[in-house]
Amino acid sequence: MTDSSLLIVGSIGLDTVRSPYGQVENVLGGTAIYASCAASSVCSPALVGVVGDDFPQKHVQLLESKNIDLTCLEYTPGKTFHWKGYYEGDMNAAITEDTQLGVFGEFSPKIPESHCSIPFLFLGNIHPQLQLDVLNRMEGNPVVAADTMNFWINGTPELLDQVVRRVQIMLVNDGEAMMLTKKTNLHDAADSILDMGPKVVVIKKGSHGATLFAKDWMFTIPAIPLRTAKDPTGAGDTFAGGMMGYLAKTGELNPSNLRRSLVMGTVLASYTVEDFSLNRLAAVDREAIRDRVDLLRDLTSFEPLDL
Amino acid sequence: MTDSSLLIVGSIGLDTVRSPYGQVENVLGGTAIYASCAASSVCSPALVGVVGDDFPQKHVQLLESKNIDLTCLEYTPGKTFHWKGYYEGDMNAAITEDTQLGVFGEFSPKIPESHCSIPFLFLGNIHPQLQLDVLNRMEGNPVVAADTMNFWINGTPELLDQVVRRVQIMLVNDGEAMMLTKKTNLHDAADSILDMGPKVVVIKKGSHGATLFAKDWMFTIPAIPLRTAKDPTGAGDTFAGGMMGYLAKTGELNPSNLRRSLVMGTVLASYTVEDFSLNRLAAVDREAIRDRVDLLRDLTSFEPLDL
Repeated sequence: MTDSSLLIVGSIGLDTVRSPYGQVENVLGGTAIYASCAASSVCSPALVGVVGDDFPQKHVQLLESKNIDLTCLEYTPGKTFHWKGYYEGDMNAAITEDTQLGVFGEFSPKIPESHCSIPFLFLGNIHPQLQLDVLNRMEGNPVVAADTMNFWINGTPELLDQVVRRVQIMLVNDGEAMMLTKKTNLHDAADSILDMGPKVVVIKKGSHGATLFAKDWMFTIPAIPLRTAKDPTGAGDTFAGGMMGYLAKTGELNPSNLRRSLVMGTVLASYTVEDFSLNRLAAVDREAIRDRVDLLRDLTSFEPLDL
Repeated sequence: MTDSSLLIVGSIGLDTVRSPYGQVENVLGGTAIYASCAASSVCSPALVGVVGDDFPQKHVQLLESKNIDLTCLEYTPGKTFHWKGYYEGDMNAAITEDTQLGVFGEFSPKIPESHCSIPFLFLGNIHPQLQLDVLNRMEGNPVVAADTMNFWINGTPELLDQVVRRVQIMLVNDGEAMMLTKKTNLHDAADSILDMGPKVVVIKKGSHGATLFAKDWMFTIPAIPLRTAKDPTGAGDTFAGGMMGYLAKTGELNPSNLRRSLVMGTVLASYTVEDFSLNRLAAVDREAIRDRVDLLRDLTSFEPLDL
């Protein structure tokens, strides 16, 4: 058995990234990495992913130093997934220059018996069939959050539909929510997703923050305005990892915990974008988290209005 | 003398608008109209603007019923300013089909002695030279907020620069803030505007809400997610009018009042977009305001994190 309370499935990559603030080559990246590192601030996550024989040992050491359970980290002969891209201007959109799937192209998540009863599961943005395979493997009705992207919304809508119907938390960005539901109003889109089954829909809006929609309540949290924002790569995955990490720590999916989980995701994502790769995120400690939770509270607080 | 505590200068128009939710022809619109109607929920505004001899009397009656001081409403032979445009998809951007300046093309705000000492002033988006003319006419150092747009940022940068240096509150959208300061980071852009003189910069982000930047604090408020959003025309002007109305009512430009003024602006703007023209805004009462202030508080509240 494992002590982990959160299983995280997703890509592991080596990224080459350029932004107006510099550039880096073959640095640690990928959904499962950012999400695990974020979650490790609050709980003990286990990571499911695949790397090639070019994956540097120092990255494994970093993950181990974060107490991330690497039992399900698979080593396969070949190249690790590689993404090359850049950001311009306000960095709101990544422009992809090259994608080399490598061993990730044949990724098939393998979850040993010891890890099938982990109570919280984050399904990063991978082929919906793989997300379903993981769901079918799990025991004991875990709390599941899934992310996806326009590629699967357009390419495999039926499979994705099955995923959405089986998760409690659906994570998408605003454009994807509308694409998925063919609605032009975000609230309508969220309602449609809720009608499919999820208890909550979390709409990620990048530098505009995130909004949670449930059947009879909503919560919205702004992104923290930052003077130093060098590289948004991994911010969404950090957000999801921090959110699920907080939920796994608290154990129960109630409104108060859900609200606070979005705060945790927002705080950790704000650190991720301050530097390339995991350079800043990996150094975040309890005090750094507290500082930005306080900042977020101050950023959003107002006294009763004089009416 | 006048009892008004807020002077509002801007366009008055007859709008023809099409959105996925319907269309209207020659309906009441314009910055000064939306801002005055919004402000009238909390204070007594006076409106400065010009209309042609085609301006329907029923609109004047509506403004009078809101106790808006119309002393400075100028009637000029000719046509009232007319804007024709439409919205598609998520309605985040207006597409202009036609603009007929009419009598607004020769607008020169005339402020009688009785209105020169009004303590709060909102300069809507008009030619920066006209904004300066009004500033030069005012007495007793009013609290001034100014709005502008990309047309003036590119077309008359030196004049606009003079305006920015003489106001306490600068209102711009995120793209305009970066265009005005040639920065790509929003926080940097806001800092640069603050360096020019304003005490606060309010960045309007449409459906993503608004963020206030001051020298050593920030505040951000989301837009209320709405199931019924028919027409965003006038939302920004409603926001500005509600904000300045609340400040005029409370009288003092401190952080607590500024925060609450953005809440008021957000609440009123949420009503404006629910219907075309001023159909919904004009019917907003105290209870409707309270409902959405409560909604905004619930939307943004979270308990202390368990860390």
